[in-house]
Amino acid sequence: MDRPRQIDRPVDRPLTLVHPRAHTWSPKTARARFRSGVSGPTAGVAAGHTQVNMIAVPADWAYDMLLFCQRNPKPCPVLDVTDAGSYATVLAPGADLRTDLPRYRIWQDGELVAEPTDVVGHWRDDLVTFLIGCSFTFEWALSAAGVPIRHVEQGRNVPMYVTARECRPAGRLRGPLVVSMRPVPPERLSAAIRESSLLPAVHGGPVHCGDPSVLGIEDLARPDFGEPVAAEPDDIPVFWACGVTPQAAVMASCPPFALTHAPGQMFLTDARDEQYRVA
Amino acid sequence: MDRPRQIDRPVDRPLTLVHPRAHTWSPKTARARFRSGVSGPTAGVAAGHTQVNMIAVPADWAYDMLLFCQRNPKPCPVLDVTDAGSYATVLAPGADLRTDLPRYRIWQDGELVAEPTDVVGHWRDDLVTFLIGCSFTFEWALSAAGVPIRHVEQGRNVPMYVTARECRPAGRLRGPLVVSMRPVPPERLSAAIRESSLLPAVHGGPVHCGDPSVLGIEDLARPDFGEPVAAEPDDIPVFWACGVTPQAAVMASCPPFALTHAPGQMFLTDARDEQYRVA
Repeated sequence: MDRPRQIDRPVDRPLTLVHPRAHTWSPKTARARFRSGVSGPTAGVAAGHTQVNMIAVPADWAYDMLLFCQRNPKPCPVLDVTDAGSYATVLAPGADLRTDLPRYRIWQDGELVAEPTDVVGHWRDDLVTFLIGCSFTFEWALSAAGVPIRHVEQGRNVPMYVTARECRPAGRLRGPLVVSMRPVPPERLSAAIRESSLLPAVHGGPVHCGDPSVLGIEDLARPDFGEPVAAEPDDIPVFWACGVTPQAAVMASCPPFALTHAPGQMFLTDARDEQYRVA
Repeated sequence: MDRPRQIDRPVDRPLTLVHPRAHTWSPKTARARFRSGVSGPTAGVAAGHTQVNMIAVPADWAYDMLLFCQRNPKPCPVLDVTDAGSYATVLAPGADLRTDLPRYRIWQDGELVAEPTDVVGHWRDDLVTFLIGCSFTFEWALSAAGVPIRHVEQGRNVPMYVTARECRPAGRLRGPLVVSMRPVPPERLSAAIRESSLLPAVHGGPVHCGDPSVLGIEDLARPDFGEPVAAEPDDIPVFWACGVTPQAAVMASCPPFALTHAPGQMFLTDARDEQYRVA
């Protein structure tokens, strides 16, 4: 798959840098800020509340998308699906999915054509919206277990990579697995695996630890989405399945139209991370 | 919802009684026996291998069913969905979903019309088959943790109850939550909750422990599916979401046609229970 076409790319700084107290925002406050035009990566925002990836496709493609998610549950754990045309979700009563994310991406025939901060003018009555678990959710659990979250410390968006692993196709949808990467000190690897594994609804345990070439990733310094992160010499790169995978499927499979979040700029729900913990 | 109409009901004894060494069968051996006409509840069969509920609906209903499952993941954890018309599954290469279950149910307009041991003559090219996790899967983990599995000990099918709790509807599908019940000694309750919680793909932790009336269940001695089980005086009834829930949705929502397994008579996959354990 080609790398994403570089359009007139907005430079968004992480919201936790721009607003140093963003981690204390309620999800409702965060959504109101985004509705008013604030944008930026949401890692570290609204502590303890579940963040989700968004992808909206025409109803005609909804079964293929839902089946793609079912067949690829590690990258695509579906937390809610709207009825066609609805921009409301049970995960955040009162929220508007057309305005309440920091930044969106608009796709036509698999091409990225715009990255606006709302999609009111692009909305269609036949759109079915999928909200998919995000690994930002388990960063709080990792942090509480002593795992440093280096991309947050460094004020960067998490690095994401298109891998050489193909997802299981569904109908007209196919595409590669996308992963996020966090460098983890060896003595914290066990905690990182344990804590994320207990949250399967937000990607669960890592898909790989160590040598990036096993996943077909050539250069950690050149992520396909997000930004590179600096690692300490002993750090082990740990790769988790990523909710940008459906965007990669859109790029590979070219549905006529799709709306997504911008990578790293998630929807903040009212759900608590604890709700998704299995034990 | 009305109770299931009592049709000319076959009396199937649990396979672990009829074939005392059924727990040592491989899934392939079990499927071959069922293909040859053997039937009966499958609790305790093919130790350590994942058992699944089956429901097949016309393609026109497949999106509603998949969305119903996504919106009700506790009772309906989907482990595989076939392409329309296919009777093969990745969970058991070489198996035939039309013949390899012990007993089936055929539904027309929400009415149970037959319970044959194969559905070759009823198959349609537009059927999409859903394979849904089954709590028999975690019985091995419960047993290993010292939890007695009383319905297996007593040679009965597990008792299942239609509750007063409505599932979240999806399109044309609605219906009540169905639960299975196992009486658990108080000193084993913690182990039963912990072990099942670690297997979210097969219903995970219980939805309720204790007073059945909380779920709208009037009489534990009169299950809606399966058979009553005798409890010890101190036992606590523990209720897990059950994969018969989609059958209850068929009964309540009346799609023109559906095929399912007979309650308690599951499809034996080649998957190992361990694959679904989160940590």
